[in-house]
Amino acid sequence: GDLRVAVLGVGVMGQDHARRLSTRTAGARLVAVSDVDAARTRAVADEFGVRAVHDPFAAITDPDVDAVVIATPGFAHEEQVLACLEHGVPVLCEKPLTTSAETSLRIVRAERELGQQLVQVGFMRRFDAEYQQLRALVASGELGRPLFLHCIHRNASIPPHFTSEMLVLDSVVHEVDAARYLLGEEITAVTVLRPRASSEAPEGLQDPQFVLLETAGGALVDVEVFVNARYGYEVRTELVAERGTAQIGLGVDLVRRSAAGWGGSIPRDFRERFGAAYDTEVQRWVDAVRRGTVDGPSAWDGYAAAAVCAAGVESLRTGRRVEVDLS
Amino acid sequence: GDLRVAVLGVGVMGQDHARRLSTRTAGARLVAVSDVDAARTRAVADEFGVRAVHDPFAAITDPDVDAVVIATPGFAHEEQVLACLEHGVPVLCEKPLTTSAETSLRIVRAERELGQQLVQVGFMRRFDAEYQQLRALVASGELGRPLFLHCIHRNASIPPHFTSEMLVLDSVVHEVDAARYLLGEEITAVTVLRPRASSEAPEGLQDPQFVLLETAGGALVDVEVFVNARYGYEVRTELVAERGTAQIGLGVDLVRRSAAGWGGSIPRDFRERFGAAYDTEVQRWVDAVRRGTVDGPSAWDGYAAAAVCAAGVESLRTGRRVEVDLS
Amino acid sequence: GDLRVAVLGVGVMGQDHARRLSTRTAGARLVAVSDVDAARTRAVADEFGVRAVHDPFAAITDPDVDAVVIATPGFAHEEQVLACLEHGVPVLCEKPLTTSAETSLRIVRAERELGQQLVQVGFMRRFDAEYQQLRALVASGELGRPLFLHCIHRNASIPPHFTSEMLVLDSVVHEVDAARYLLGEEITAVTVLRPRASSEAPEGLQDPQFVLLETAGGALVDVEVFVNARYGYEVRTELVAERGTAQIGLGVDLVRRSAAGWGGSIPRDFRERFGAAYDTEVQRWVDAVRRGTVDGPSAWDGYAAAAVCAAGVESLRTGRRVEVDLS
Amino acid sequence: GDLRVAVLGVGVMGQDHARRLSTRTAGARLVAVSDVDAARTRAVADEFGVRAVHDPFAAITDPDVDAVVIATPGFAHEEQVLACLEHGVPVLCEKPLTTSAETSLRIVRAERELGQQLVQVGFMRRFDAEYQQLRALVASGELGRPLFLHCIHRNASIPPHFTSEMLVLDSVVHEVDAARYLLGEEITAVTVLRPRASSEAPEGLQDPQFVLLETAGGALVDVEVFVNARYGYEVRTELVAERGTAQIGLGVDLVRRSAAGWGGSIPRDFRERFGAAYDTEVQRWVDAVRRGTVDGPSAWDGYAAAAVCAAGVESLRTGRRVEVDLS
Ligand SMILES: [Mg+2]
Ligand SMILES: [Mg+2]
Ligand SMILES: [Mg+2]
Ligand SMILES: [Mg+2]
Repeated sequence: GDLRVAVLGVGVMGQDHARRLSTRTAGARLVAVSDVDAARTRAVADEFGVRAVHDPFAAITDPDVDAVVIATPGFAHEEQVLACLEHGVPVLCEKPLTTSAETSLRIVRAERELGQQLVQVGFMRRFDAEYQQLRALVASGELGRPLFLHCIHRNASIPPHFTSEMLVLDSVVHEVDAARYLLGEEITAVTVLRPRASSEAPEGLQDPQFVLLETAGGALVDVEVFVNARYGYEVRTELVAERGTAQIGLGVDLVRRSAAGWGGSIPRDFRERFGAAYDTEVQRWVDAVRRGTVDGPSAWDGYAAAAVCAAGVESLRTGRRVEVDLS
Repeated sequence: GDLRVAVLGVGVMGQDHARRLSTRTAGARLVAVSDVDAARTRAVADEFGVRAVHDPFAAITDPDVDAVVIATPGFAHEEQVLACLEHGVPVLCEKPLTTSAETSLRIVRAERELGQQLVQVGFMRRFDAEYQQLRALVASGELGRPLFLHCIHRNASIPPHFTSEMLVLDSVVHEVDAARYLLGEEITAVTVLRPRASSEAPEGLQDPQFVLLETAGGALVDVEVFVNARYGYEVRTELVAERGTAQIGLGVDLVRRSAAGWGGSIPRDFRERFGAAYDTEVQRWVDAVRRGTVDGPSAWDGYAAAAVCAAGVESLRTGRRVEVDLS
Repeated sequence: GDLRVAVLGVGVMGQDHARRLSTRTAGARLVAVSDVDAARTRAVADEFGVRAVHDPFAAITDPDVDAVVIATPGFAHEEQVLACLEHGVPVLCEKPLTTSAETSLRIVRAERELGQQLVQVGFMRRFDAEYQQLRALVASGELGRPLFLHCIHRNASIPPHFTSEMLVLDSVVHEVDAARYLLGEEITAVTVLRPRASSEAPEGLQDPQFVLLETAGGALVDVEVFVNARYGYEVRTELVAERGTAQIGLGVDLVRRSAAGWGGSIPRDFRERFGAAYDTEVQRWVDAVRRGTVDGPSAWDGYAAAAVCAAGVESLRTGRRVEVDLS
Repeated sequence: GDLRVAVLGVGVMGQDHARRLSTRTAGARLVAVSDVDAARTRAVADEFGVRAVHDPFAAITDPDVDAVVIATPGFAHEEQVLACLEHGVPVLCEKPLTTSAETSLRIVRAERELGQQLVQVGFMRRFDAEYQQLRALVASGELGRPLFLHCIHRNASIPPHFTSEMLVLDSVVHEVDAARYLLGEEITAVTVLRPRASSEAPEGLQDPQFVLLETAGGALVDVEVFVNARYGYEVRTELVAERGTAQIGLGVDLVRRSAAGWGGSIPRDFRERFGAAYDTEVQRWVDAVRRGTVDGPSAWDGYAAAAVCAAGVESLRTGRRVEVDLS
């Protein structure tokens, strides 16, 4: 029968997942939602005709729940994921896996001790068709070894509480995982550079930043992260290899010509750019869980990203290159 | 509960739909397949764990079947769709609705008499994001009235039995529907021009063709149809309106640079180009049927396309402009 | 020494040529200008420090003038070009060669009798790098025989006196020559279709038009000509051959992303798009004339274009396909 | 009369300039060439019908030479440019101005003492239409202040004697000048990073490199320099400003579709990409010199680039960030 799923945390992201599971995912059924905000839980539960469960741990241990999607704030992840492991419940956890390398490592170890993979981390880009094509191209060896990844990560704007560290922890984290996914190598050092801040960014926010990631094999990954780019959401990557290059994220669909010139429109946010990737991510996760497996990004992937981002935050603070040592 | 669907005809297209309904469509369940080829029926039924039903009419009338997808050869459509109407079964019928304007009109009338819309025709482009954007742009009025649609329809190659008439009936039919969808106008005349045939096309086949469609409002739609273009599948449309233009179908995703130059790859066939549109088509059809409605292309759309294509075949034979008179 | 050149007709086009010869062409010297408007002649002569010659025939026969550029109105061309032939003066004549097929043929014959090529017609696209690349691709045979040329010719707007015939005679004439140049075949028939007129075009003007040119070898050339396209100047061509296609005129240089979306700017007029082609045209003409030859588009090219356009005007008037018979 | 020009050094670059001055530049006449290789001097002189002058200083002081183009090896520039200054001869000096910051500064000072500008440095990109558009966009302020320039500089391959330092001195020097030109700011610090070397590069060569330039105003310029990229010559720049971005160097002209996919060709070398820019550079230099002025990149521009590149070489050697202090 269908996989019965509970969604924990029904803010923007959690509601998206709830809707997806209810209306676009085959073989799954949303059965419960949970959130610290009781009114919101009630409203979302009603919208989708499912149960509102106040306590997330009650949802995790509910015998009528087969699997859990975690979309709560990052600080709540560790305890909830560990509870899933404890009760043998497959879990798709939105990134970050946890808010520190140490706590992420704890999950890696708990899962290892359990001897069964139950955790998938929500790095949705791995399910985007263009990232998959680029990875396949790298893996084919046709262009030789990778030398650079040039990454662009721009948001139109960010919420008021966003800090300089969050550029690394919330935005660069995607590039960290994408680099590991595309190159198949761990990141060994991070340097965060601070060019002049945009006058369009809130006072005091170091935006943009320029992040250099070094891989175990000596490839260099540079990331421009700019979260008040104003004009829209743009994520673009260029691979440079020994005998050729490749770019993704160009965003060409409808091209018009008018008095304003020729061109197209730019996505407003990540959901517009990566909506189909989220759909695929959740469908594949459901398919795998129903087969009794997990085949997406693992707890280790979540831990590696957390460790690199922690080094990034240290580099942002000190201005120095910081090495990453994965346990 | 889930919509229980039978797929009639499990050739390439029908198998695609069977797989889609089994693995990617929410709220639907494949329950039966049917085909004149008993062995193939058996194999496909086994693959998806559903019933093999020899007689398509038995599938249509089966009380455990809620809705039907027809992917049989065109000549079988009329009888099967009429049976669906007779038994009140919602049906998604692959194009063409039927093989003649007269028989399509018969379905339009039967459905009208029934007083309930049950038929949707499989014009999947209406569910492609780029076509939807282009239609929205036309509808916005922002660029003024449409004057031209320049359409390109190229296949790498076609099966051996393909005739010159089939370029009109099987390929141009998509452009006819797309033009009607994008412009919101009926087609009133068709002229088919015959440039020199490609030496890559089978002896005797008039390939390519150049088709001119005139709309009720005086817009001109020109269609290059070329089914032995060798290099891949390409469907591209340019709208020319009074104050601007817009193009879709450019097919830019991963762009590479190597010793061969810069550029990208070209889809091999329609499933690669329109796979996501088929997914959306079927999902929306399932959603609508579960709500008790049909909101996709109607029997009238199927009839209008059939009437235009019949005129096209006449023009291909006579070399003359042929007017279309919709009843 | 330098080639001493007189420019006849110093409206916009003639002034352009005068400036080009004075400041950007090696091996040539502007020595005189002539125009029916005496004040304008005086002003332009003063600007470039050359002689103002009232009578164009005096300029042609001036012993201190080695060669002539004709940029007078079309109706004046026949007499001026014939005078050049009579006096053995090399001439670069702006298109059209003359205003009718008959008079153009007269020039062809006069030059033949002379036994020396002196006339070059100003089809500047032949000197545009993209057209040259496209022709080389056709000539290489790599893509097989050409089947279609899809041509777009759009102007932002046209002067008030522009008539429906002038769309054929002044705009389509460039596509006629380009088609002959690219395909290396004569045009044998023309059909002009009249879609609804744009409400942005002056009352009574048949704008846009859709022109079908058939070649001797059976290729089909379709031309959208739209001279009140408002948004800018755009000339684009797509070749469709047996094993591949190629497009030129995409106009991608600086691409920006801003709140308005992504894209670039569109040339305002032909001088912006084809300025470099004019420079090359004149430089190569000067180089050839100094070597005692002509190697650009010939009087025959001017005649063939005139004959095709005359047929186009007849088709525009009658609505019928008109055959072209080159003498 | 025409400007009489001597070209010193007639290797590949000097021969290009000799041909240009002889056949494509208005108002100039090549009158002499000079080279340490007497046979080559003779051959080039004969080809263009000009005098062969063995001693470059004899050419500089020749009363029949009005101006000089220097295309000798970099180490010869200082003495030759100083001789031009001494004798009041306008000079277009190929980059680098000299091979060190100190010697370049000597030229700056000598020219200042002379009180007359005679030196132009051959940074040809300033005459490329796309660079000019991008600079105009920056200068307009429309997108806000610049934050980043992302620069790509790739060569297919380099001559055998090329060293790791030469990537900075010969290739990055162009990006240094382009950054100064586009941003209108001096560079204040340089860091050269060394990712793994390509196995396609000669043993021991640090290729590629990744260079970070900091500007006085806090903008960050990153340069990927990769001189054994194999597939062709590519120079691309992306400006990131506070409210938008812009890219140049995309290299889209003829786009084809064939069995190999869609796309276009890539220039083989800088002459293919920047040929028109060289033509414009020389034409404008000739025009200015004939008016008695210099309006292109100055000795100061040559000095600033030399100082930045010297810092770059130090950073390449030490692995550290090196500050640039312009006198
Ligand atoms: Mg579901
Ligand atoms: Mg299903
Ligand atoms: Mg001149
Ligand atoms: Mg010259």
